[in-house]
Amino acid sequence: MNLTTQHTKHSLRFRDLGIDTNQELVVFMPASCHVCKSEGFQALTRLSVSFNGSSTIAALNITSDGLLKEGEISLSKSAIQKLSVQDNDLLEVAHIEPLQSITSVRSKLYGNTLHQQEYDDIIQDIADEKYSNIFLSSFVAACSGSNMKLEEICYLTMAMIKAGNKLEWGNEIIADKHCVGGLPGNRTTMIVVPIIASLGIMIPKTSSRAITSPAGTADTMEVLTNVNLSLAQMRKVVEKENGCIVWGGAMKLSPADDIIIKVEKALDIDSEGQMIASILSKKAAAGSTDCVIDIPVGATAKVRTVDDAISLSLRLKEVAEYIGVNIQTITSDGTQPVGYGIGPSLEARDVLAVLENATDAPKDLRQRAITIASEIIKLVWNMEKQVAEDLVIKKIDSGEAFKKLISICEAQGGFYEPMHAKYSKTIESTAAGIISEFDNRKIARVAKLAGAPDAAEAGIDFKVLLNQNIMIGQPLFTIYANSPGELEYAYDYYKQNEKQIIKLSYE
Amino acid sequence: MNLTTQHTKHSLRFRDLGIDTNQELVVFMPASCHVCKSEGFQALTRLSVSFNGSSTIAALNITSDGLLKEGEISLSKSAIQKLSVQDNDLLEVAHIEPLQSITSVRSKLYGNTLHQQEYDDIIQDIADEKYSNIFLSSFVAACSGSNMKLEEICYLTMAMIKAGNKLEWGNEIIADKHCVGGLPGNRTTMIVVPIIASLGIMIPKTSSRAITSPAGTADTMEVLTNVNLSLAQMRKVVEKENGCIVWGGAMKLSPADDIIIKVEKALDIDSEGQMIASILSKKAAAGSTDCVIDIPVGATAKVRTVDDAISLSLRLKEVAEYIGVNIQTITSDGTQPVGYGIGPSLEARDVLAVLENATDAPKDLRQRAITIASEIIKLVWNMEKQVAEDLVIKKIDSGEAFKKLISICEAQGGFYEPMHAKYSKTIESTAAGIISEFDNRKIARVAKLAGAPDAAEAGIDFKVLLNQNIMIGQPLFTIYANSPGELEYAYDYYKQNEKQIIKLSYE
Repeated sequence: MNLTTQHTKHSLRFRDLGIDTNQELVVFMPASCHVCKSEGFQALTRLSVSFNGSSTIAALNITSDGLLKEGEISLSKSAIQKLSVQDNDLLEVAHIEPLQSITSVRSKLYGNTLHQQEYDDIIQDIADEKYSNIFLSSFVAACSGSNMKLEEICYLTMAMIKAGNKLEWGNEIIADKHCVGGLPGNRTTMIVVPIIASLGIMIPKTSSRAITSPAGTADTMEVLTNVNLSLAQMRKVVEKENGCIVWGGAMKLSPADDIIIKVEKALDIDSEGQMIASILSKKAAAGSTDCVIDIPVGATAKVRTVDDAISLSLRLKEVAEYIGVNIQTITSDGTQPVGYGIGPSLEARDVLAVLENATDAPKDLRQRAITIASEIIKLVWNMEKQVAEDLVIKKIDSGEAFKKLISICEAQGGFYEPMHAKYSKTIESTAAGIISEFDNRKIARVAKLAGAPDAAEAGIDFKVLLNQNIMIGQPLFTIYANSPGELEYAYDYYKQNEKQIIKLSYE
Repeated sequence: MNLTTQHTKHSLRFRDLGIDTNQELVVFMPASCHVCKSEGFQALTRLSVSFNGSSTIAALNITSDGLLKEGEISLSKSAIQKLSVQDNDLLEVAHIEPLQSITSVRSKLYGNTLHQQEYDDIIQDIADEKYSNIFLSSFVAACSGSNMKLEEICYLTMAMIKAGNKLEWGNEIIADKHCVGGLPGNRTTMIVVPIIASLGIMIPKTSSRAITSPAGTADTMEVLTNVNLSLAQMRKVVEKENGCIVWGGAMKLSPADDIIIKVEKALDIDSEGQMIASILSKKAAAGSTDCVIDIPVGATAKVRTVDDAISLSLRLKEVAEYIGVNIQTITSDGTQPVGYGIGPSLEARDVLAVLENATDAPKDLRQRAITIASEIIKLVWNMEKQVAEDLVIKKIDSGEAFKKLISICEAQGGFYEPMHAKYSKTIESTAAGIISEFDNRKIARVAKLAGAPDAAEAGIDFKVLLNQNIMIGQPLFTIYANSPGELEYAYDYYKQNEKQIIKLSYE
């Protein structure tokens, strides 16, 4: 990253204080520092910090009480990694120029339509980590609701593609799938990829880790194998197996989007424009030519009504056409969790049960995977629905898809069986009735409080389904955790929200 | 502040690490902390921290490397002050409930009109410091541009008044003045207050410190006397002198506004609605009944065109009527700095020169003060313009206003003469021509780089005026600083922006 600085630089000696501020880049300087004084740096001033040819922007925290000596400087963990510095390295600090692209953000806030160049500049500055949380939040706010015209969503998507890496596979057809999130346990990718790959269609899948959910596909795949592959390693797997499931974060396909998403989650803002740009920029950057997008619809899913799903679907298609990706959207039931398990290991177990044709395999997960895989085949081979579905079912029933998943795992670094959690507690119903509603968001929260996804074995294992008749004392689900404290904590939260998490109607 | 927490609290022992993060409240806990693990706290999680009956919300930074031991906890300087903790005090941490008022912010972002209760809830949460920078920024963005209806500005103003303290003076008439900022050196308050007070009208003036400018009125008044008065001390001064000029920050007149303003400055967003609510909520909270508002107009002032000033003036009057404050607005020249000095001590010297009727006193500052003071008298006594102006001029010319300022200073804690800076450098013109434009913003920046307002003696002293004919080698201004580094730094910035700071036209 090349930062234009206004003035002379100053050298200070680095010493690690060992402070982790998550993704926020922080620089620590002592109150006595002559550079702070002469440059007029105050706490929270954003500075340029450089070492060995690379630079970053960080917010200043001032230390007193001898934590750092005059002439010393420290960085947060994220900034240390970014600059690859070690104790006693000499860092340079300098003022940063005001960001020109903020003018465009202000213009958007005042209701103007932005052009391609303006989106390019904003997104490049975000990708370069030049935006503070305050700036990011104002950009997200400016683009929220229905503030973006269709053409602007196209521009934003293009800008995100330009600001990241683009993978090339040298193949005419690259299949892909995506699910517009919000549904716990919906791990179809790990079933769809082996099916499609075993049919000879290339599907080099990059998946995400959980941001606010109890598991992302990358977290669940990581239970079975290594997902932290370099692009070179990923290529080898795909050359051999026609497919892979790896963590996409390291590929930097849309680095600006990775940053924007965190702020959107914090604000809990659903911006249709940002969501479309986020999904499609990553598909285009991953080199995908044909992609099926699953839109689960439900009161506590991301998309809440069929009307919203139709509107989203139309816009997705228009923007996809603009950037040259062939897509098909499908809507699906988003009223309850998918499969039985929620949390990486429990979800991985469900995936394996479906592919192994186990008698107790979750039927909903199997059916969802079949639908998506069939749609991909229809899309790339222009086949009739029934023919496509038969092909897919055959791949599962014959065990070929299972073998393919194992081969992919082995190519990625070896196959491991899911592990069990150390502690568990089974919840029994305190009332009788018919299950009329699940609150997906609160269910996800119970699983997270139990430790998912950091503790891969933690989570929830459901014993019941929507519309099922329940008796008093009937087991509803089991909570799994790796510490008694986390188990207790997840249980407490459940008890406090019991009636909203699983709603019973009495007939 | 009463925070509803979801779960059990945990006690941790406080140890001061001495880290200043400015107004941002940060809590430090070691990576080994059992509470972090059991509660699922991650870096940047926002927690409730309690001690001795008071609580605050702070963002978590995780420390490693033995900076803190298991069972220990630390806080940023701002959080330490807020909770009044000392080493070895036992603090409690807990999860916080999601903020309900964020739902209203999202609603506003989606284009809806908010009601009084929604503004009340948002502003109370902001005043309680429950909003992170991300949330604050989204609220500021939602209210930016022309997004607020007149009724919403009224609601926001009322909400700000309710969330702060309200001063009562037991007097029918409480005069006040305000300047819609952006003009360096515009220190009329220190001339107007003694004039009005000496006429027997009560004017208990609370002023602000600089946020991004080289001096606020409180900074300039502080050169001459103490401005950090408690409400009780302020009352004593006003009882004795009919007026005062104190720092308003400690009065907590509109604590939410103080927080919002910082984010607005960072975003450099001029939101008319927020500005009106900010100005008028503080006037109402200060107990003012009659207030003159000066709106300087100029390309680099806060209000840039006469049309904008008229529109702002109309809205100010409508909202003022709604909240029951009697106001008069005046527009003034905002094309160049006022007086000669910029920076606390230099501005204080100009103020004294006007009140002492010195031959070299800045005429523009004198005239502005006369205009504003006359408008106040017209407003409260319903007098003719000429009569009011004669009264005001008599107060200056007779030295009564000067004596009154000295008396007020003595009542506030003693009168001190302005001090001189240690270092100075006089800039001479490198070209001949007529001064056609000043860039107020860049001029302010030179003064700030020289050290103003923290170094009260630092700043700029102008020798020239707009439309003046300049010869090569003619002194334009002198930069004052308390260190050679700051002097050099301010000079460098000037040299790089020379042609924009003072524009010459050649005829």
